[in-house]
Amino acid sequence: MRGRYKAGGAQAALLIVTMLRLPGLLLLLSLGSVCCPPGALSALPLASRRGPPGRAQPRPTALYQTRYFPQKIDHFGFEQDLTFQQRYLVADQHWRKDNGSILFYTGNEGDITWFCNNTGFMWDVAEELNAMLIFAEHRYYGESLPFGNKSYSDSKHLNYLTSEQALADFAILVQHLKETIPGALNAPVIAIGGSYGGMLAAWFRMKYPHVVVGALAASAPIWQFEDLVPCGTFYSIVTNDFKKSGQCCSESILNSWGAINRISSTDEGLKWLSSAFHLCSPLKSKQDAAVLKAWLIETWVNLAMVNYPYKADFLQPLPAWPIQVVCKFLKNPKLPDKLLLQNVFQAVNVYYNYSGAASCLNTSQSATRNLGLTGWYYQACTEMVMPMCTDGVNDMFEPRKWNFHVFSEECFKLWKVRPRPSWIPSVYGGKNISSHSNIIFSNGGLDPWSGGGVTRNITDSLIAIVIPEGAHHLDLRASNPGDPKSVLQARALEVQYMKQWIEKSRHKH
Amino acid sequence: MRGRYKAGGAQAALLIVTMLRLPGLLLLLSLGSVCCPPGALSALPLASRRGPPGRAQPRPTALYQTRYFPQKIDHFGFEQDLTFQQRYLVADQHWRKDNGSILFYTGNEGDITWFCNNTGFMWDVAEELNAMLIFAEHRYYGESLPFGNKSYSDSKHLNYLTSEQALADFAILVQHLKETIPGALNAPVIAIGGSYGGMLAAWFRMKYPHVVVGALAASAPIWQFEDLVPCGTFYSIVTNDFKKSGQCCSESILNSWGAINRISSTDEGLKWLSSAFHLCSPLKSKQDAAVLKAWLIETWVNLAMVNYPYKADFLQPLPAWPIQVVCKFLKNPKLPDKLLLQNVFQAVNVYYNYSGAASCLNTSQSATRNLGLTGWYYQACTEMVMPMCTDGVNDMFEPRKWNFHVFSEECFKLWKVRPRPSWIPSVYGGKNISSHSNIIFSNGGLDPWSGGGVTRNITDSLIAIVIPEGAHHLDLRASNPGDPKSVLQARALEVQYMKQWIEKSRHKH
Repeated sequence: MRGRYKAGGAQAALLIVTMLRLPGLLLLLSLGSVCCPPGALSALPLASRRGPPGRAQPRPTALYQTRYFPQKIDHFGFEQDLTFQQRYLVADQHWRKDNGSILFYTGNEGDITWFCNNTGFMWDVAEELNAMLIFAEHRYYGESLPFGNKSYSDSKHLNYLTSEQALADFAILVQHLKETIPGALNAPVIAIGGSYGGMLAAWFRMKYPHVVVGALAASAPIWQFEDLVPCGTFYSIVTNDFKKSGQCCSESILNSWGAINRISSTDEGLKWLSSAFHLCSPLKSKQDAAVLKAWLIETWVNLAMVNYPYKADFLQPLPAWPIQVVCKFLKNPKLPDKLLLQNVFQAVNVYYNYSGAASCLNTSQSATRNLGLTGWYYQACTEMVMPMCTDGVNDMFEPRKWNFHVFSEECFKLWKVRPRPSWIPSVYGGKNISSHSNIIFSNGGLDPWSGGGVTRNITDSLIAIVIPEGAHHLDLRASNPGDPKSVLQARALEVQYMKQWIEKSRHKH
Repeated sequence: MRGRYKAGGAQAALLIVTMLRLPGLLLLLSLGSVCCPPGALSALPLASRRGPPGRAQPRPTALYQTRYFPQKIDHFGFEQDLTFQQRYLVADQHWRKDNGSILFYTGNEGDITWFCNNTGFMWDVAEELNAMLIFAEHRYYGESLPFGNKSYSDSKHLNYLTSEQALADFAILVQHLKETIPGALNAPVIAIGGSYGGMLAAWFRMKYPHVVVGALAASAPIWQFEDLVPCGTFYSIVTNDFKKSGQCCSESILNSWGAINRISSTDEGLKWLSSAFHLCSPLKSKQDAAVLKAWLIETWVNLAMVNYPYKADFLQPLPAWPIQVVCKFLKNPKLPDKLLLQNVFQAVNVYYNYSGAASCLNTSQSATRNLGLTGWYYQACTEMVMPMCTDGVNDMFEPRKWNFHVFSEECFKLWKVRPRPSWIPSVYGGKNISSHSNIIFSNGGLDPWSGGGVTRNITDSLIAIVIPEGAHHLDLRASNPGDPKSVLQARALEVQYMKQWIEKSRHKH
């Protein structure tokens, strides 16, 4: 799941810059400063931040087989009758023909091998559930390109990139697996996904309850649409994560925007910023400074998403509780502009250069190359319209209203499409989903996406699990000695529900 | 709902003729003849069949308002962003703002005013349920043409004629009504439909349970797909209706095919047939004779569908229990060919000329001009693939296997599309629908479509109601003194369930 203000690719940058051009008042001075002790300057040189590589153990890729299945490019129309090869991964080490279940990962906006390697939970519970693991790639991502290298060429070729088509792919694939794998015909299938993949898992159960007996929707912000939740929730959670992780940390970030604005108002200041942030491409205009700010926003958001309690490598290699590490550089919000921004650089450098390998930082670099940014932007410009806003009061960002009109114009410029903000609530039910069943919505209390998630039980089979110490779908990650108790409990409960669904389905056959 | 072997339009005729060319053995002589007494010749002249016009009272059209709502032509893609005007009818005489419900007719393959005027049940129960009646027209039918008079021009324009698009239209329209009609926001909406419209009503509840609290799916053959029911069921029910309606009636029809085959083998015979059947366009070839047979098949099927216990005018103006009237002409299956066929003419003349107004019969005339045949053929050639077959043993028709390959080739010739026979079970669940709720499936025991319908309770909220004396969605027709007790009971039960759904939904708000 990507935030709205993502850098990555020229087109995307255009979108961001325009978003940042929205009117907003700087309210820095009015914000609370009671907490802030005089802090020591913490602008260390770049080289000194070199640390251990911090990579978590990736799953060995030899454990799964890679397969391909021909899917109709258009499930919902008959003029386009061609097919494409959907990639999926199969791990059947623990599968039992006589008594097995199938855990089906509903792939999201990226290369499926990456999700496969970052969803250790499924590997960890496979034996207990006699489960075959399937990881299905989402169309238009990874290798599953409907029109090969022309898939992104224009809106005509992109026309089949929707959640509905992806769900239909999943449904047809499950049926194929059931019909072709010995013993699988009556095996209960459980959908599992995180983030956008979690939304897909929930929607899969809602729309195809005959295909999956239940769904684990981890960190799935199915309500981050239209006016289902306040547009400011997302960024206020990001802010809270920084508030809780270090004294005056969020105030420092709040103050940094004004500092950037002041310094970037001169050519000399732009030069200084480029050097202070060790940018690979120097800033040349105020617009470039806006890109810098967007990139910083993205960094803080991503840190909030991956604020895991142990060293990990999801979006980037990072230390345990990375926001605490970042906040060590952001203790003094009242420093003069240049000193403050040197600290901000040290802070983002934790994110982009924890391994110490980067010789410069790139504002067009995004979270990870494993995510398909272009595809996600197209989806955000069509179905996945998630209103977000900031006010500089309840959050640490420059105030920015949600402006659908401007957003729509940008989408039209980029893709020749118009977003339909009410479609997702219309088709998937918005908050009125109580007639569905067997869905677990898990959310991390630290995860900004939890603001758009289901965090209270809806019925006795639409279950909310909140993991207070959890960031973005922590529960889907592999078991780790650093796991807080809350995520262990969450996973145990998830397995318990899954066993119930499996048991109940067995009684039917 | 139309059978597979329908005449109507040159394109359709092509399809039929090919279907009839499928290999099959005539088994007439081997069929039972024990029941057949020597029957008197009953070939009366055409004029003598003039009877009363037989029209049921149509609902006065002034009782509803006609409105239009702009719908996206493509709900599932963003390249095509245009809208069309969907027609819908509103009758709010009994609507109560404070405590009302909405009965929403999910329009099927025809002009919505016709369904409105033929769904008296909704009008009859409106007051009891404080209900607003909405009749929503199905896209590509009646006035709701996405591309005006170009809507049927080619497969590109027809690409948006699917059940999924129609359901999305309905969902968006209901939301619009709720948001714009004072008092309607929390009003419970119940979907009601018959035949294909009944399938849509059931699927509407399955896919959009947040939009409708329940559905009455009358005579909805949701299982008439793939191998969910035997392909011969439909025609064996047609045959049983004739068997029960008069001695040797079905045997007479069974024998008629051989008679037609023998007589049509000579030019003189073709001439004789044209005259005997008072055909407007004389038969000129064996292929024309195949069209005649297809037209007869359609007639018998339609009679089975509208075999109502009172004089009615649904597809055609007809007397009460029309098959009994027809069978009076078909008592002697062993007559010489010409005499037998003269009787067959008298029999079909009941259907086409009960009013006595026809000076000749037209084999390209179909059931009613109110149904959109071309659209339905396109749907049958894409999603709505309903396998049917006959064997001449369990039914009164020439044996004809279901041949998907030939069917697919014909569809490709006609529309440049290929049917996808497994799509409907994949998307709507086939027989695995038990996780849904609040759907009544009503079926008439005389209705050939009941063979593909749900005739046993699936859960305590997926209810089957069988009306033994009912033909095609008799329960949706206006109350009539000739109604059998079973349909009165069915309607009472339907109302009882609807009240439960309404009551339950009230407790939520």
